[in-house]
Amino acid sequence: MAEKIIDPWGSELVEDYEKIVKDFGLEIFDCKIFPHPNKIMRRGVVFAGRDLKQIANAIKSKKKFYVLSGIMPSADKIHFGNKMVVENMRYFQEQGAEAYILVADLESAAARGVSLKEAKERALNFHIPAFIALGLDPKKTKFYFQSENIKVTHLASETSKKVTASEFKAIYGSLEPGRIYSAFTQVGDILYPQLKERMPGIIPVGIDQDPHIRLTRDIVRRTKDKYKFFAPSSLYHKYTPSLDGGLKMSKSKPESCIELPEDPKQVCKKLLRAKTGGRDTVEEQKKLGGEPEKCIIFELYKQHLVEDDKELDKIYKNCKAGKLLCGEDKKNCCELMTNFMDDLIKKIEQAKKEVKDLEFIR
Amino acid sequence: MAEKIIDPWGSELVEDYEKIVKDFGLEIFDCKIFPHPNKIMRRGVVFAGRDLKQIANAIKSKKKFYVLSGIMPSADKIHFGNKMVVENMRYFQEQGAEAYILVADLESAAARGVSLKEAKERALNFHIPAFIALGLDPKKTKFYFQSENIKVTHLASETSKKVTASEFKAIYGSLEPGRIYSAFTQVGDILYPQLKERMPGIIPVGIDQDPHIRLTRDIVRRTKDKYKFFAPSSLYHKYTPSLDGGLKMSKSKPESCIELPEDPKQVCKKLLRAKTGGRDTVEEQKKLGGEPEKCIIFELYKQHLVEDDKELDKIYKNCKAGKLLCGEDKKNCCELMTNFMDDLIKKIEQAKKEVKDLEFIR
Repeated sequence: MAEKIIDPWGSELVEDYEKIVKDFGLEIFDCKIFPHPNKIMRRGVVFAGRDLKQIANAIKSKKKFYVLSGIMPSADKIHFGNKMVVENMRYFQEQGAEAYILVADLESAAARGVSLKEAKERALNFHIPAFIALGLDPKKTKFYFQSENIKVTHLASETSKKVTASEFKAIYGSLEPGRIYSAFTQVGDILYPQLKERMPGIIPVGIDQDPHIRLTRDIVRRTKDKYKFFAPSSLYHKYTPSLDGGLKMSKSKPESCIELPEDPKQVCKKLLRAKTGGRDTVEEQKKLGGEPEKCIIFELYKQHLVEDDKELDKIYKNCKAGKLLCGEDKKNCCELMTNFMDDLIKKIEQAKKEVKDLEFIR
Repeated sequence: MAEKIIDPWGSELVEDYEKIVKDFGLEIFDCKIFPHPNKIMRRGVVFAGRDLKQIANAIKSKKKFYVLSGIMPSADKIHFGNKMVVENMRYFQEQGAEAYILVADLESAAARGVSLKEAKERALNFHIPAFIALGLDPKKTKFYFQSENIKVTHLASETSKKVTASEFKAIYGSLEPGRIYSAFTQVGDILYPQLKERMPGIIPVGIDQDPHIRLTRDIVRRTKDKYKFFAPSSLYHKYTPSLDGGLKMSKSKPESCIELPEDPKQVCKKLLRAKTGGRDTVEEQKKLGGEPEKCIIFELYKQHLVEDDKELDKIYKNCKAGKLLCGEDKKNCCELMTNFMDDLIKKIEQAKKEVKDLEFIR
């Protein structure tokens, strides 16, 4: 069973998304379930979920539901995973969801030694503006800091009694007290929007965060008669691969990682060395065509840089046909990436001015 | 090692106080360490402690220190153990301590299903007035509810990362998530008074609460360089025995248990059946004398009903000399108990009026 455990605090790579879907009993994501799916939904970057029907129904029947995600202010940069989460949050906002963003300052203080004061400054000066820059609509979003929301503590304390040690261990593979404490804080976060009014909610996350979803869903099921919470739905996206072809970008390999934001010139240098689906020689590539499904540059287009499906399709076909060679393609990618970064940096600066007008739940 | 574990949530009896002192590395309590010790200190009812010298020094040098205890609002009555805690709190208040009373409403919600609203009503309408009636000086006491004090959550979250699963299990004998969560809330409570200003503190408790003290002391030691908290001192009193001679009064045996408050007539009936140190026949008792050290009635005098040491000594000697027989003694005890209960009930009613003027920390 140990191999089935995903560690939300670790950096284990998910090598086989299909296996994950099967082992964890996830639903394979079919973008037809939602109206007007966004690009990562349409392109299979969003690959799985839990209980998506209740969200689809809420959208369809215009019933209340929520979408929730968190900011971890221990990091001083965000990454492409955050970008996809924001993209999905934006999508559900547009479909009528109440959006919640929590700043996990308790977690970053406890696990990373970032003081609550520092965490607050970072969140206000960078993370929240960056989320807004990436597309979150601040006017339709409720923000809070874990350290200021005692109701989250109420939920955490109460739900902590509903799970045995062996159940917890089966989900997390660990019984370290610090992990247990913070897991229940996350359960509190996930259920918090339902305190005033019970409603379905969806949590877009990386697959490494699934244990928190499972724990919360187990607790909701177990306390159904008493609390009548809706079990949270969840939505999983694939990782953005490392530029050298590894399954997940990670700061531990800075040459294969693009930070958000990062100086475009530096990024373009990194792109030059990225793994592609090119053949050994130009002649061969012109003859056989490239292999975009193995190409990190193409993956960047698909996940992040190319909005229009037709344009993406054109790149794909030109590559396959041997018409688009890797050198030219990397130049194109560099241009798109530069536009993206310039735009992001500008939008973050703009968003910083909006932060002072935000209201935080206490 | 399992036999050494005391379970703060269980009802295990402590059969041998000396063994406890040895096994847990407690200090034997010597009442000469403190000025003007109260009656339960003088009489060996307070039998052990941890790190008492730092409190004695604070008293002597008039330095700041605190005394802290909690109210568990799931119970609808208090008991003699609470009475001793209040007696010791009162003592340290008089010696200059800042006093803190927390209402463990999160704990009683999670463990006993008492809603926070109900817990608040109970605490305000009964427990706090009862503590005041038992001698707590409300003007010199800071009160708070766990559910309203987010700083306790900050401490709990942060300290939860400082303990491994095996360390926790060695102290508590359990890794149940609910226990872990509430243990760190208690660590947060115990350290809370030091947040603004580091100072020694003393926690008067029954021995069953020692795991929380040990956990907190371990964490303080381990984080000394970073947080510079003082390790909490603690003070342990013996249990009030069950009327049938068992080591601890318990509501599970109502005929052997006296509640606080309880109708004096009903109590006197129970006292008639209490275990004494009497001999088989009156003749024998007149000849050999009684055995007050085995007598629950005498224990009630010693722990609760007789303030004056000389009077207690007189009872002891008269019993030993065969001059005081059990029938007469029980009548005397009934009288003292009736006075005590009448007084307590009256004082609780008075104290209820004072509660609305209290200020609660938020």
